Formats: sequence, C-alpha cells, structure tokens
Amino acid sequence: MTTAELSVFFRPRGVAVIGASREPQKLGHGVVRNLLEYRYSGPIYPVNPRADEILGLKVFPSIADVPDPVDLAVIVVPARLVASELDACGQRGIKGVIVVSAGFREIGPEGEEKEAVLKQIAEQYNMHLIGPNCIGTIDGHTPLNTTFVVGMPRPGEIAFLSQSGAVAAAVIDWARGSGVGFSRIVSLGNQAGVTESQMLEAIGQDGVTRVIAAYMEGVSDGSEFLKAATRTALQTPVVVLKAGRGQSGARAIASHTGALAGDHVAYEAAFRRTGVLQAHTTEELFDWARALAWQPLPHGRRVAVLTNAGGAAILAVDAIEEAGLELSPLTEDTKTFLRQRVFAAASVNNPVDILAGSGPATYALCLDALLGDETVDAVVVIQAPQDWFAPISLAEVVGEVSTSQLGRQKPILAVIMGLASTSDATQVLHRRRVPNFAFPERVGSTLAAMWQRKQWLDALPIESQPVETPACDREMGKMTIEAGLEVLRQRDGKERGWMSPEQVDTLLAAYCIQTPSSGLAPSVEHAIPLAETMGYPVALKLAAEGVVHKTDVGGVALNITTSGQLKRTFKSLRKQASRYIAEDDIKGIYVQDMIRGEAELIVGIVRDPQFGPLVMVGTGGTQVEMKRDVAFELAPLTRKQAENMLDRTRSGHLLAGFRGSPPADRPAVIDTILQLAQIALDFPQITEIEINPLIVMKEGEGVRAVDSRVRLDKNGSL
Amino acid sequence: MTTAELSVFFRPRGVAVIGASREPQKLGHGVVRNLLEYRYSGPIYPVNPRADEILGLKVFPSIADVPDPVDLAVIVVPARLVASELDACGQRGIKGVIVVSAGFREIGPEGEEKEAVLKQIAEQYNMHLIGPNCIGTIDGHTPLNTTFVVGMPRPGEIAFLSQSGAVAAAVIDWARGSGVGFSRIVSLGNQAGVTESQMLEAIGQDGVTRVIAAYMEGVSDGSEFLKAATRTALQTPVVVLKAGRGQSGARAIASHTGALAGDHVAYEAAFRRTGVLQAHTTEELFDWARALAWQPLPHGRRVAVLTNAGGAAILAVDAIEEAGLELSPLTEDTKTFLRQRVFAAASVNNPVDILAGSGPATYALCLDALLGDETVDAVVVIQAPQDWFAPISLAEVVGEVSTSQLGRQKPILAVIMGLASTSDATQVLHRRRVPNFAFPERVGSTLAAMWQRKQWLDALPIESQPVETPACDREMGKMTIEAGLEVLRQRDGKERGWMSPEQVDTLLAAYCIQTPSSGLAPSVEHAIPLAETMGYPVALKLAAEGVVHKTDVGGVALNITTSGQLKRTFKSLRKQASRYIAEDDIKGIYVQDMIRGEAELIVGIVRDPQFGPLVMVGTGGTQVEMKRDVAFELAPLTRKQAENMLDRTRSGHLLAGFRGSPPADRPAVIDTILQLAQIALDFPQITEIEINPLIVMKEGEGVRAVDSRVRLDKNGSL
Repeated sequence: MTTAELSVFFRPRGVAVIGASREPQKLGHGVVRNLLEYRYSGPIYPVNPRADEILGLKVFPSIADVPDPVDLAVIVVPARLVASELDACGQRGIKGVIVVSAGFREIGPEGEEKEAVLKQIAEQYNMHLIGPNCIGTIDGHTPLNTTFVVGMPRPGEIAFLSQSGAVAAAVIDWARGSGVGFSRIVSLGNQAGVTESQMLEAIGQDGVTRVIAAYMEGVSDGSEFLKAATRTALQTPVVVLKAGRGQSGARAIASHTGALAGDHVAYEAAFRRTGVLQAHTTEELFDWARALAWQPLPHGRRVAVLTNAGGAAILAVDAIEEAGLELSPLTEDTKTFLRQRVFAAASVNNPVDILAGSGPATYALCLDALLGDETVDAVVVIQAPQDWFAPISLAEVVGEVSTSQLGRQKPILAVIMGLASTSDATQVLHRRRVPNFAFPERVGSTLAAMWQRKQWLDALPIESQPVETPACDREMGKMTIEAGLEVLRQRDGKERGWMSPEQVDTLLAAYCIQTPSSGLAPSVEHAIPLAETMGYPVALKLAAEGVVHKTDVGGVALNITTSGQLKRTFKSLRKQASRYIAEDDIKGIYVQDMIRGEAELIVGIVRDPQFGPLVMVGTGGTQVEMKRDVAFELAPLTRKQAENMLDRTRSGHLLAGFRGSPPADRPAVIDTILQLAQIALDFPQITEIEINPLIVMKEGEGVRAVDSRVRLDKNGSL
Repeated sequence: MTTAELSVFFRPRGVAVIGASREPQKLGHGVVRNLLEYRYSGPIYPVNPRADEILGLKVFPSIADVPDPVDLAVIVVPARLVASELDACGQRGIKGVIVVSAGFREIGPEGEEKEAVLKQIAEQYNMHLIGPNCIGTIDGHTPLNTTFVVGMPRPGEIAFLSQSGAVAAAVIDWARGSGVGFSRIVSLGNQAGVTESQMLEAIGQDGVTRVIAAYMEGVSDGSEFLKAATRTALQTPVVVLKAGRGQSGARAIASHTGALAGDHVAYEAAFRRTGVLQAHTTEELFDWARALAWQPLPHGRRVAVLTNAGGAAILAVDAIEEAGLELSPLTEDTKTFLRQRVFAAASVNNPVDILAGSGPATYALCLDALLGDETVDAVVVIQAPQDWFAPISLAEVVGEVSTSQLGRQKPILAVIMGLASTSDATQVLHRRRVPNFAFPERVGSTLAAMWQRKQWLDALPIESQPVETPACDREMGKMTIEAGLEVLRQRDGKERGWMSPEQVDTLLAAYCIQTPSSGLAPSVEHAIPLAETMGYPVALKLAAEGVVHKTDVGGVALNITTSGQLKRTFKSLRKQASRYIAEDDIKGIYVQDMIRGEAELIVGIVRDPQFGPLVMVGTGGTQVEMKRDVAFELAPLTRKQAENMLDRTRSGHLLAGFRGSPPADRPAVIDTILQLAQIALDFPQITEIEINPLIVMKEGEGVRAVDSRVRLDKNGSL
C-alpha cells in the first residue's frame, strides 16, 4: 500500500453511508448529518433498503445502486451484516471503507473470526479498510467529517491519530472548546486493515500537517512502526500519549480493544530511537503539539524568561529547571540595553522582571533584545494580570515579533495568565502561531520536548548507522547454539531453556567476551588442584540444573584464600544445596578464578515480542531488582547509543572514576554491550541473555563476565 | 495576636481607602470601585485631600476626619507617604490596615528601612498590617473585595493565600473563568505584619473555609509555621504550591520579594510533618483543593473506575497506578450484580466499562454498587463524549449519588471529558460538590493527595509524640562540645569548625553510638602494636587537619591482614598524603579495627536556618552524592518517623535481607537516627554531623560508626 492511496480517506470524490438512518439518535444518521453539516462538497449517498430520503438526500437501496463518483464508504450496520456489505463495496469498486460498527476483535474469539473475514475481503478487493470499531475520520481542510460526533474543530496544522474512539471524541470536543485547530483526526479502531504505522506515514506526507499527536495503546507490528515512525519524524514531529503503562492498564487494553500491549520499556526505547516524543498526559500532548507545530526548535537548552511579575516567573523557572533546561546567563550588552529601558527597580537578570507598570512597548523592546542575545535559545513571555493595558495588545506584540524575527529562529512561548480576561489574547496568539499557556508551569516540559527533538535530529547522521560488531568466531557461536538447542530437544525442557554454563562460556568467547577461568569439581578432591592451578583467591559456585539465581539458595562463596577454607566451604555449599535441590540435579561445584575489579555491572538481552532484542545495562550484583538502576535500548545499537545507555545509569557514570577510585575500562563495557546486541541479532533463537556481574577492571584491563545465563527458545532453529 | 483579631480583615464594620482616586487607571480608584461593585455592605470612606467625591461617595480629606464605624484602612499612596498615613490610622484607632503600596523590602536596603518603620508603627498602635506590596484581600461571603483587580470569584469553600500578588491576580481571573468558588483570597505581600502562619491559622478557623490553597515562596519563621500548619491541618486541609524549588528559582525570590527561601528539602520535610500537601503545579493545587473541600477522604488506596470507554479508563488507570494507588479487585457479589445490569460485551472487572450505549440509569446502578463494595475506597466516574444522552443528566446522577451516600463516605471524582459540550455538566457537578476533570489523568495525583492526608490524620496519635532518646552520658557530651568550642576559639577556625576525631568518638559514645576501636599512630612503629592489640584485619586512615573526605585524597586503606602489609601500606599512605597536605597538618595515621557488616549507610544532620535540625539517612559509602539515595526529616523524630525514613531509601529496605543476604540490625539503625537527632536538639552549636559509613551488623549485633564528622558553630556557646 502506498501512502498516496490513503488519501482516499481524506479527499474522496464521493462518500456512501451504508446503514444511513432517518432516526436522529442512530449513528447512521449522525454520519450523514456530519457530512452535510460540516460541508463536505462532494456527493453524499445514504444507503438503506428501507428509506427514500434522509436529511433531504436521495437514499439508495444498496451500494451497488450508488452512481459514480464514489471512492469512500462508511459502514454503520450491525456486526453480522458488515462482511456482506464490505464485499458489496469491493464489487462496486470502492477503494476506501471505514467500518464504524463494533462487535469484532474487542469482544473475544467470536469477534476475532468475524474480523479475520473482513481483513480477507478487503485484501481480496485491494480495498483500504479503517476500523472496525472506530468513530471515523475528520479532515479539517477538505472539509470532510465521517464521524457521528457532534462538533468539528477548526482547520489547523495538528493531526490527531487515536486507537480509542472515545479519546478521539473527547479531543474533538476539547478542540472546539479551546479553539485549537486540526488538520485531521483519525480514529483507527481495531486496525484490521490500515494500521497506525501506515496512517502515521501517510499523514506525515500530507502537506498540511505540521505535527502528529497520537493516542496509542500498542503497535500492530513493531518493525513496521520503527520504520514508519523514523521516516515520519524526520519531516514531521510526532508526539505520542502511550496508554497502558502499568500492569492493570495493560490488562484493560487486553480486555478492551484487544491490542497487544508490549512491555512499556520496549515502547520507550522504540520512541527514543525513532524520535517520537512521549507525552504523559493529554494536556501535555497538545501543549507540545502546538509548540512543535508553530515555533522553531531551540538550538540549545538556555531559556530566557520575560515577566511583569516575580512570582509567576519563579513557577516558570522551577518547571524549566526540573525539565532539565537552564536559564540563559544573558550578555552584558543585553543587560545594559535592558537597564536603559526598564524601571530602576526592575530586574535585568534572567528572569527579566519588568514589573507591573510596564506595557506592550517595553515587552516588545525586551523580547527583541532577548531574542538577539547569543546566550538565549528560547524565550518565555509571561504576563500576570494587570490593570492598565489589555492583554490582547501584548498578544499582538508577541505574535508580531514571533513572525518577524527573521534569521533568529528562536522559539517563543507565551504565558498570558488567567482565563476569564485572556481568551481574546489567546485567540490572537494562536492565530499568530504562538502557543499560550494559562499557567507558567507548562512551559517546562514543552521546551524540553522541543529540545529533545532538536537533539534527535542533530544526532541523526550518526544514529542511523548502527555498528556491525564482528564476532571473534561466529562459526563457533553457531555450533554452540545448535548444541544448546539439541540438548533442549532431548531433555524436554527440564532446563526451561537455559544453556549449560560451559556452552554459555563458549558462546561468549566466540563473541570476544572474556570469562574467568573456571572448572567443574564433582567433589572436593577435584576442587583443590583446580584452585591451585588457577591460584588463590578463588570463588565457588554451585553447579546445579534449574538454579538460575545461585545467590538465592546460598550457592555462591567468594574470596577463598586457602585450601583449608576451600575444603570447609565446599562442604558447606554442598550441604546447603542438598536442602533445596534434588541430589540428581547437583552436578558439583565450579571453582572459578576470583575476579576483583572496579565495578560490577549487569548487561543483558530480552526479546520483546514487538520490537525484538532489548539490550539492558546497569548496576549489577545481587540487588539488581531493588536498585533498578538500568537503561534499555533496542538492538542494533550504535557505539554512541551504547555510551548513552551507560551514561543514563549511576554505575555507568561512576566508571570514569569517582572520589579516589581509579577509572574503569569503560570502552570494554561498550564493546560488551555491542557484542551482546550482535549475539541477539545473529541468533533469533536466543530469548534471554544475562551477565551479572560483569566485572569491570581498571582502564585497559577489560571486563570479565563472571556469571552468565543464556536462554534459548526450544522451538527455534538456525 | 489572636486569630479572632484577624477577622477585622474580613468582616470590618467600615473601610477607608487612603489614596482613593478619581482617575480610573489608578489603583486607588480600583479599590473603591471593587468595594462598591462587589457589594461591600458597610460604609466606604475614600480619603484624598484633593477630591470631594469619587464614584458617588463622599471623600474625606484625611483618615482623622473619617467617622465611625471604621475598622479597616487600605493604603494606596506612594511609598514615601505610607508611614505617616499608617501613623494617622493608628491615632484614629483603626485596627486593620492593608498596605498595597510597593517600594519596600523588595527593592533592597533602602526599602528595608522603610518597611522596618511600618512594622514599628503597627506594633506601637497594636494594629494588624497586611503588606506592604500586596494586592489586598477578597472575602467571598461578607462580601468584601479590597483589591484593584477586575473580577470577583463566586463564593465558595476554598481559601487562597498568596505570597505573590501576580499569582493571586491570575487565580482571581482563572476562578472567574472556571467557575470555582472561593471563601477568601489573601495577597500577603512582604509580610511586615501579618505572616503566612498567622493567616493560615486564622482562615483555618473561619467557619466557611473547607480547604486552604497557598502559593508560598518561603516562611517568615520556621517554628511558627510548624506549629500553625499542624494546628490548621488537623481541621482544614492545606495544599501548598512552593515556588523556588531549584537554584535559580531561589535566586529569583531573593531578588524579588526578598523572602528568605529555605532549602527545599527542609520545606518538604516541614510539609510532610505538618500534614501540608505539596502540589507541583497551579492546576494540581486547585484539583486537589476542590476534591479535599468537597469529597470525603478515602479509607484506603483501592480505586474503582466506572467508564463508558476503554481508552479513557486506561489513561485514568495509568495515572492512578503511577500515583501509588491501586485498582479495587471488586467482590464477586458486585460483579454478579453488575453483570445482570450491563451489556453482555461490557467489562464487570475493574475498570468497569459499561460501553458507549449505556446511559445515566446504568451509571447510577453501577456507581451505587461500586460504592457499596467493601474492596472499593474511591470511585472515578468517566464519561467519554457520546451521542445519546446529555452529559448534564449524568452530572445530576453523580451529584445525587454523591450527596446521598449516607454512611458510605467514599470519595467520587468525575471525568466528564471534553470542553465545548460539558460546561453545564461541570457546573452541575461543582454545585453538588463533585470535582470534575476534563481529562482522566488528573484523578491520579488528586486521589493520592487525599489518601496522603488520610494517612497523616490516622498516624497522628503516634506522630505527635516524638520519643525522648536519653543520652548514655549527657554530661560527657556537654563537656566534649565545650572542649570542641574551646579548641575552635583558640585555633581561629583552621578546622573550619570540625571537631577532632577523638572528640567526635567521645561525643558519639556519650550518646550510645558505638565506634570501632581506633588509635593514632604517629609512625609505623606505633602502628604495629596497636594493630596487634585490636587484632587483624585493620583499616588505616590518614589523620590530617582539614581533610574531611579522606578517600578523595587516597587516605584510606582497608582490610590489612598482616604486619608486612601494614608496614607497606602505612608508608604508601604517608607518602601519598605528603603530596597533597602540608607536613605540619599530618598528625599520623589511625589504626582502626576493620569492621565488616551487612550494609553501609550514611546518617547525618544539617541545621536548616528556618526549620532547625534536618536528619538524613541513606545509602553510604564513597558514592553518596552520586547515588542520592537518602531521606530527610526534621528533628525531633518519633520512632515511626525514623522507620519511615529508612523505608524510603533503597538501602533501608535492603536491611531486612535480600536474596540470600542475612537480615541486618535495623533497630540499631533506628536508635542511631534517633540519637543523632537528640544530639542535634541538645546542642544547638552543632551545625553538621555525618557518619559515613555507618556499618550495620547482623541482627542483634548493632551498628558501628566507622567514620564520623561533627562541625560546630564557633560562635555558639552552651
């Protein structure tokens, strides 16, 4: 499907409404009413075998009877009748169909079957299908409104894509009340045909949309989404409100639209990678959308605040700093210029407080000066309510400066505070493409989102080329995986998919990841010569089938320095193990070279059902789950992305040395992260890898994977 | 001052306006206009020597000429004239004065002097003074509006207290636009007379206010605030938006209203202790205020969500869970009841989704059932826009159930989504005291704030009695502090106030805090017998003046097991020290018993200028600042508060044992926290204490303060 084909939903030459009704409370009536009332200019064909006329329009008994031109049909009939109507549309040669009717995938297995039939019919006739279980589409420019929802937003530059019809309806109502304009609104429903990824890309290229806001519960295909979102975000900012972040939220999705809710960590990584900005509330979604649609991106994180009231400025400054931005220092030139134009008691330091007696002219001069200051990347203009000039005149001034600041290209956000006396000022600002906020706190996350997009765009030439990390010996890796799968098939899943420690060490070695020397001692008599060969101190680790986290069962002893200690510890470990583990499953005890390094990390891989291998790095040790100091990214990774992951964790930060501890071998950690990602990409049979701890040695001495686990999918093959 | 006396500002028998003006753009005109326009029913006396009549009112040449009754004067004259007018008010016997005029403390030293004069005059005549540099007061019930700001909110149950006139003006404008009612609004200005603490307490007892919302930049007196806020919050919920949370924010305060901005950590501890709820945005402030004013508190954290649309419910559920609350499981009885009354495709699990075809009757039945369910502590009712019933009818239903749920006393929050079509529904809900939110996300933090207040109230009988923690030997403690101060006075501050390690150990011993045995070895020859007496392994620590963080200069060596190792390490430490530290300052090296425990914590005290000793506990070691895993509380502490502090840190959590590590001596940590707080309370000369690491031994074996620092204020005395 080409994205151009989806334009049938926005600029059809004629629209049929199958299930059109004369009764005003029926949805099939509302759709016809909206097409008429919101002035769709092409022909409208109500279809209903039991009516002659609806709202003054001629009614056709079936879609087969509808004359040309007709590109789009909206189906609003009971679920059991949808398939035959869809088929009739196909025979009639209609290329776009919106199925509003509910009663499909969202109601369970029975509905799932019905939906599969729709999908099949649509494919058979090469039709584009939106829905089922949706509320339709709105195009603010054509204009075209195929929904039954009362009200139509004014035309604008923001598109809204929704996987919930209810949220789409609420946004339509909110848009009418707030006066924010929309280029298009699309309710996607169950996505039996057109997916969020296809629609995202089509809208991104439509020529009228300058930002896409989306309410998402899940993606239909992870790799499609990654491609579509990246391509779209390159041109058009995309802001997403991802619902179902917690456990119960995810359950609600499963029982609701049936969308497969992927793990939120994977979604966050996918959004970060594709340059999609993730809002946390509906208000934030549209705060960001307005700013991104209307204002240029900042070139740095330094913000100037211009205000007529200190209290209001402090709220803005708190929000700006909490969002990770900072205040511009301002140059001496700027301060001198300002000082000559404001009251003596005014503050010419940032925040610049021109006091309550200043009016639009002073604002104009100061705003211009701040935009011209090289230490300023963005300006927030605040007006607390005052008595001696109309807020609308400040709105005109800010709007004029914003549109005329040629060559400066710095974003301006307005905070004309209040509500009752400021609606006309807000209208003026929004007409001049300056977002206004009723309270100063909201500028913080908005500017941060703009700055995040700028950084993503700037990093692109590097980000787009993930490094290939060659294995030391890929053939050996492949053989090891084959051997692991073979064992699994024979053993019938007793290991729950975990490879043996020996196989794991071989696999890591094949990818140039060093492990400490180690040997299996079935009895204490075997252990002593092993320890003497590798030299004390050594560590002892229980070798038992089915035990993944050995410290949970007291199966690890570290720093054994003498043969006497070795003997005692061996026995006690063995005895401890017998309490918890069947004797058959205990294979002995590993004797391992005791590694001491500068830091203990955890690195790992899990395979997300939607987005593929998810790479993790963070603070290692036994308390990983308590500490939760980890970062995730999707594979493949660039070197820079791996570095960035490390920087996001406290332990990663500390590798550079802190308070007397020498710097650790950070480059070796980066290599290991990249190699792990490579293993996961090379072998899709691997579902999980974990190295914990990965001991990081001094600079130049590398890392050692002290304890590692690899899990295979038993049914996978090479 | 009694709080009853402050009622002069809200129910005066007559109001004089000094500086009343005929010119409409003057503030002195606006005040007279507002008194008239917003229907103050007592006599209004404009005072102006150069006018006869203003807005139809007789004008008096001076305050001395104003007849009885007159309780309140509003002064709106240039700063230089304020003092003499205030004096005239005193002579006239007026008891309440609001000084609107600016040009005082907020403009610097010159203004500070002028403000001191005002303070003195007010005290001389026993007058209550609000301001200067404020916008006055509004009483929604009297009614009385002494501000010059256009617009008056409708009467209600929320009071708003503001240290910024601009924020107060913005709230007045927002209140008019949103229809939220206010009992009173007070702009406090520079607080030369009436402080935020006094006003808080007065409003809390006024009989009409059910919740107090406040914009605060700082408190005028920490201990007054602690008392006033606790007394007030016992009866009336208090919600605060504290501005100046970050660095630059605090600077903006300093250059603005001159309020002393205390450290934000201390404010957070003060709010937590006094039951004051801290909002993060203006919107949150009033979201919480409405819910606290109108709805009962939840008795637990389990929330039921009733919705006609799945997508909207997911947004609510995400917010509820992210705020630390959870979804009610619902009883089987409830589910059975619901199942019989909703569509087959509806979900009777929480969130209960009755689907788009359900109307107000179904909502009424389901809402009643959920309120009656024992697993439900609060209900969120969501209505996404739909076509077949008017939102206002749902508002009536929810309002009716809310007011009639006798004996159930569970909070209900409404989310009638949208804006354009829902304003009448919102009006109805607010009249019936059910807060409505345009989007579902806002219920999360609102319910969490209500639950936080409930927990604070429930904990009160315990919380209000901090434990006295007797010293083992207070007299010894006192002597040690005296000795420390004496040394400081002699040495002239070379130690920057730090006590010697020997003094610190004595002080801790006096308060029953164990330290490892330790001895100072000037040379290696002294070190060996010391180590042999205490037994290997030992630790070595540089003893040098002026070195606070020894690991920064490589001045610590741990785990020395033999005399050979001791000799080598001693020399290398000594050599290392010579590189950084003047030979005169190196006193030798401490030999210390090597303590190995289950966990390393940090515990400490800093003295906040406003709120006194602030106690800290958290993850110890060399990386404290990177890890930032610490909790703060104000002293004195109850045992429960100390436990709660520990629970808020990851390390505190881990003391109970995790993944194979044995449980550590948590009670001993609590004792140490309480003892440290006691030391700080006993000796106000101590400005800082830090124990890092505090090694926590196995259960029953106590703790050891391995490395400790105490700083004294040189000018303090016992």
